[in-house]
Parts: sequence; C-alpha cells; structure tokens
Amino acid sequence: MNEPLDLLLKHVSIRRYKDESIPEDHIHQAVLAGQAASTSSAVQAYSLLQVTDKAERQKLVSLTGGQTKVANCGAFFVICGDTRRHRLICEREGQTYEARTEAFLLSVVDASLFAQNLVIAFESMGYGICYIGGLRNQLDEVDELLELPHGVYPLYGLCVGVPDEKPMTRPRLPVDAVLFKGRYPTDIDLAETIDDYDETYREYMQQRTGKARPWSTSMSRKFSEPQRVQVGDYYRRKGADLT
Amino acid sequence: MNEPLDLLLKHVSIRRYKDESIPEDHIHQAVLAGQAASTSSAVQAYSLLQVTDKAERQKLVSLTGGQTKVANCGAFFVICGDTRRHRLICEREGQTYEARTEAFLLSVVDASLFAQNLVIAFESMGYGICYIGGLRNQLDEVDELLELPHGVYPLYGLCVGVPDEKPMTRPRLPVDAVLFKGRYPTDIDLAETIDDYDETYREYMQQRTGKARPWSTSMSRKFSEPQRVQVGDYYRRKGADLT
Repeated sequence: MNEPLDLLLKHVSIRRYKDESIPEDHIHQAVLAGQAASTSSAVQAYSLLQVTDKAERQKLVSLTGGQTKVANCGAFFVICGDTRRHRLICEREGQTYEARTEAFLLSVVDASLFAQNLVIAFESMGYGICYIGGLRNQLDEVDELLELPHGVYPLYGLCVGVPDEKPMTRPRLPVDAVLFKGRYPTDIDLAETIDDYDETYREYMQQRTGKARPWSTSMSRKFSEPQRVQVGDYYRRKGADLT
Repeated sequence: MNEPLDLLLKHVSIRRYKDESIPEDHIHQAVLAGQAASTSSAVQAYSLLQVTDKAERQKLVSLTGGQTKVANCGAFFVICGDTRRHRLICEREGQTYEARTEAFLLSVVDASLFAQNLVIAFESMGYGICYIGGLRNQLDEVDELLELPHGVYPLYGLCVGVPDEKPMTRPRLPVDAVLFKGRYPTDIDLAETIDDYDETYREYMQQRTGKARPWSTSMSRKFSEPQRVQVGDYYRRKGADLT
C-alpha cells in the first residue's frame, strides 16, 4: 500500500468542522493540483468560486436544504462548469460558439476531474471535505445570489475544513458489482450483487443511524420520485444546448 | 509538499505504453480506491467495463478516430454512467424509475469522481493513463460492439499501462483565471488572463510540436464547429431524459 492509495481508501465525507479557516496558500496549492487533472484537449471548462461573504454562505445554507456546514466549514466553494472563456474567444475571433450536449457534458466531466483532484489535495493536507449536491436544489436562486454570468453554472458545492468528527466509512458496492470484464452482467447476476450489498449496507446503517435500512430501499425511494426537475431548464438558460 | 500532492502535480497523459499487461490485483486495488470517492447519497451510478478481447480493442481504435493506444496499452477500460441497478431496484419494488436530467448529471459526476480516483490509484502504482474522450465519437457503434444494456452508457475510455515516454506537462490556465473569490470576473479581466495564458501555451506548443499555436486558436477552432452532435440522442436512447 502506497501513501496516495492509503489516502484515497480512507476517505470519508466530513459534515462537522472546527472553526478554523483555510490559509490562502493551501487553497492555491490545492487548485494547482486540481488543475493538474486531465482535461479534454486542454479546454479546462470549469471555474471555482469561493464564497467568502458570511451572509451569502448563510443564505446558501437555506438554499441547499438547511446544510449548516455550508456556513460552518473552513471554506466553501462552488464548482462551476465554465464555457464563458470559450465563448469570449469565439466571439472576439468572429466565430459562433457551438453549444451542444457534448460541450455541456465536457464541462461536467472536466469540472469533476478537477474537483476530485482538488479534494484529494485538501485531504492530503489533513482537511476534510463534503460535496454539496444540494446546491442543485435551487439553482436559479444560487445563480442570482452569486451573480454568475451566462455560460458559467454551478454543478455542486464543496465544503472544506478541519474535521471535528470521525465518521465510519460507508461501505461501497462490491468490486464485482462495478468492474466487469468483457461484458456487462445479466440482470440476475446484477440482482444478486445488489442483495449481497443490501446486507452489508443494512448493518452499516444500523450502526450509524440505528435503523437497518438496506441500500435498495434508499435507492427506490430516491429514484421513484422526480428530483430537481428544474436543472435541465436552468442549464439551458445558462447556454447549454441539451440537444 | 506531501506525497499525494506531488503525485497529482506531476500528472501527464501517457500515449505510448510498454507491452505489459496489468495484474488483476492492481486493477482490483485501483477500483477499490475509485469507489472510495464521494458518491451522491451512495447512488454509485457508474460501472467500469474492461475490454479484454483483442479484436474488440482493435475495433475501438478505429471507433475512437485511430487511437492505437486503445489497443496497445496495458488495459483499456470504458467508464460508464450506470442507472441500471437503480432501474432494476425500482422495477422489482413496483416503482417507476424517474429519469431526468438530474439523474443523468448525477451519473456523469459520480462516474468522473470515481474515474479520477481510479486514475490516481493507477498512477500511484507507477502506471500511466490517458482518458479517451474520442469514445464519444461513435457512441452507437461502441454500444453495439460492447452490447451494453439499457441504462448503461459509455462516457469515455481509459488507457492504463506502463509508460514508454516522458512527455512534458502541459501548462494550465493561471490559478487566478480559475479560482475566484466572491464574484466571477468581468470579461475584460477574463480576457487578460486568456492573453497571458496564450503566451505560455504558445511556447509550450512550440517546444512540443514546433508550431507556436496559442490556446485561443485551439479553442476557437474546437468550439466553432459542431462536435459529436449525436451524443444527446444516444444518451436519450439509453434512458436519459434530458428535460
């Protein structure tokens, strides 16, 4: 086991932070590491907005469904897909920027490779992190609050700070439910791995919350209800042509 | 500088590989590290398909625009968004799976956080990697070749292997063109950072290719032409409801 591998394997999301901010040079270093991630043909279709205003962070607590860690963590960032630089470049060269599903997809992938490197960099310095998907609960309001221009759109938030808890690691699907050689498995084989995982997950939930809920139950509840139905329209308004 | 940070910062994509395959236990270990990445509410909306058949890898060379490394690297993987497990679960519980832009977006983010951890794990073991966005050039053909079921869709490929070259690191945008505190910059400020970067990039391209092409020129060429216009339709056919 090498040191980076060990760091990756011990990841847990941190939801409680000490009241300590993050030195600028640590943020700078982490962003450099984030940028070192692969990017499709060097397009670098992302930006990182650090929300520094206390009142804005407090507002974001309610916009993300009451997640107080958004205000309490050492630093809060918004990870954005960013097509604005490309649009500007096309514009000043008299070209038309061709927005398509591909360009949007590329920004989501690029931003996420960047974000995960950023996260690992912060974790390597001893910080804890938590991604905030809840930032997509009310994208229009977040956009208005942060005054984001056309072509720049939040994908998710990121809390970073000094951990004030030591949570259990959440068990993942077994490797053979995720890695397939040659062909994707049949539904019968897939169902078996889900059943096995449900057992493991149930035990974890029992220990963590006192309620032995299997993974399947969480998934069927989550995916049988329409979620964040406005996100497509929001991204379209910000210039993504999801055709 | 700690060891994981050092590893992140020295990343370069590898396009030439030695003729050595990757031991199964290394792949297993890297997948475990990949899975340790954050996943939205534990949904784990991804799968990793290793293409093991030689003829299929050769076919993928042409489907990705003649990228011979797809056949020559130590192991070639297809990173897939995967909603199939969730669909199965909903189905067997008598629920309707609610596909929306959100569910698709979630799979792209989840898969990319997983993929980047996977990549770092492989790099920590001394392997080189290259993401293959060209896998989206002809998604229907890739899908047919790999016989992917409904709800499972390739996002990009990944070459892994023992490096047989030592490329220069490609310079990234300056940190102050990517990290913003409080507010996104004005177009004038943004244009200045682009101009600075164009100089750096031009020098890099001169050294690497003998042609001093600035970043702007690559970007305007890339984004003023419609790219991979079929991807939206393909993902829709695989069950993503991009509304």
